[in-house]
Amino acid sequence: MRFDVFTLFPTLIQPYLEESILKRAIQRGLIEVHIHNIRDYTTDKHRTADDAPFGGGGGMVMKPEPIFRAVEAVLGIPPACPLILLSPQGRTYNQEIARELAEQSRLALLCGHYEGIDERVREHLVTDEISIGDYVLTGGELPALIIIDSVSRLIPGVLGDPDGAIDDSFASGLLEYPQYTRPAEFRGWRVPEILLSGNHAAIARWRREQALLRTWQRRPDLLARANLTEADRKFLERLKQQNALSTPDTSDHPKNSD
Amino acid sequence: MRFDVFTLFPTLIQPYLEESILKRAIQRGLIEVHIHNIRDYTTDKHRTADDAPFGGGGGMVMKPEPIFRAVEAVLGIPPACPLILLSPQGRTYNQEIARELAEQSRLALLCGHYEGIDERVREHLVTDEISIGDYVLTGGELPALIIIDSVSRLIPGVLGDPDGAIDDSFASGLLEYPQYTRPAEFRGWRVPEILLSGNHAAIARWRREQALLRTWQRRPDLLARANLTEADRKFLERLKQQNALSTPDTSDHPKNSD
Repeated sequence: MRFDVFTLFPTLIQPYLEESILKRAIQRGLIEVHIHNIRDYTTDKHRTADDAPFGGGGGMVMKPEPIFRAVEAVLGIPPACPLILLSPQGRTYNQEIARELAEQSRLALLCGHYEGIDERVREHLVTDEISIGDYVLTGGELPALIIIDSVSRLIPGVLGDPDGAIDDSFASGLLEYPQYTRPAEFRGWRVPEILLSGNHAAIARWRREQALLRTWQRRPDLLARANLTEADRKFLERLKQQNALSTPDTSDHPKNSD
Repeated sequence: MRFDVFTLFPTLIQPYLEESILKRAIQRGLIEVHIHNIRDYTTDKHRTADDAPFGGGGGMVMKPEPIFRAVEAVLGIPPACPLILLSPQGRTYNQEIARELAEQSRLALLCGHYEGIDERVREHLVTDEISIGDYVLTGGELPALIIIDSVSRLIPGVLGDPDGAIDDSFASGLLEYPQYTRPAEFRGWRVPEILLSGNHAAIARWRREQALLRTWQRRPDLLARANLTEADRKFLERLKQQNALSTPDTSDHPKNSD
């Protein structure tokens, strides 16, 4: 899969590609990331990529011409692949969108900066807009890396362990069950006995129930869209009944109480 | 404000601090970021920071001892400041949480990796868990940078322009209005005349209405929590009436049609 990133700050993108799984994926030819400096497509001697907003107000706005020129030079007219503007105004990114994007053979990412980007880019050039969450960032570079990282993980062969991606939070629509590793006892805190039992069926059931419990406690909104079995539903019913009998927990984000 | 980041991959954090507004904020003494390599707190000769999960399954789990040792060496016992685990299982990050964190004088961030982190870290060490969104990433390093970036922007003096942060999307609880810069006409697409009018009151009203319109079209869920005036409410009422009269728009994410 090929990613083309359009940015005013290439040095914010490059180092992350030289480490961890992305580095290996690039070395093994599973992904390519091409970084394009929008400033290289300016035509004045000051290489101006931003200007004051019409109508006044603070901050600077990214100019339309260098962006159109950069995108058209690299992707052609019309663009050869989806062009996603990273912007707080886009649809909210999630694992479902990551899976949707992972089916593309090529994806272009446009990083906003400053106060924003000339609206004509949004209206006439980009094909999609994505927000990674409801918070304000300096620019679209971290969001572009978030998309490259999360999409690349879904490309066959990128993760060393072929099962790795499957158990993760959100992959199944549930939060992940608790994980433990050695030592079996640390400062008097022992791992749950069942994990030492060697009973694989019982461990699988315990993990599924822990995932359901945790999701129900912390992110009940996820349950509505999760892929649940009949046994899952019964377990959740029991949880709700137990909860109705005990003192109601009104905290926003209860600590896990296993 | 001081950030302490605990990670197995310091080289994923450092480069971002050497660019853009974070670099300036560090140079001007407004923020400090200290990066701690968890592997430096291992005690065996192989510097083992992860191990296979109890109960089987793919992937590796971060061991508890080096994490406890690193955190206690740097933050003391009990930790001198909030210790936030970046994890898909945390509360979902948003601008409100960013403002809450910006009130701290010191904040510690613990980056998960691999299949996860030994549950005893979650139960007995961290004081908070934050997820930047419902998607699966390789580790907590990009999320830690997201938090450092978004929180630092709220620290007085970090943004060159003191008004800069205020108009941004989410700061007011609404998506941002369209921005335009020169040229006034580009490929036949003109900026809205009102922005060239010099009538500041009319421009302010147009922008507010555009922000309301865009939020209503794209993220109606935000309107419930936004800080709305009486005039805002009347404008939204008119929008709803107009919409009820015209063909219903069933698309998930309509393009802005100004």
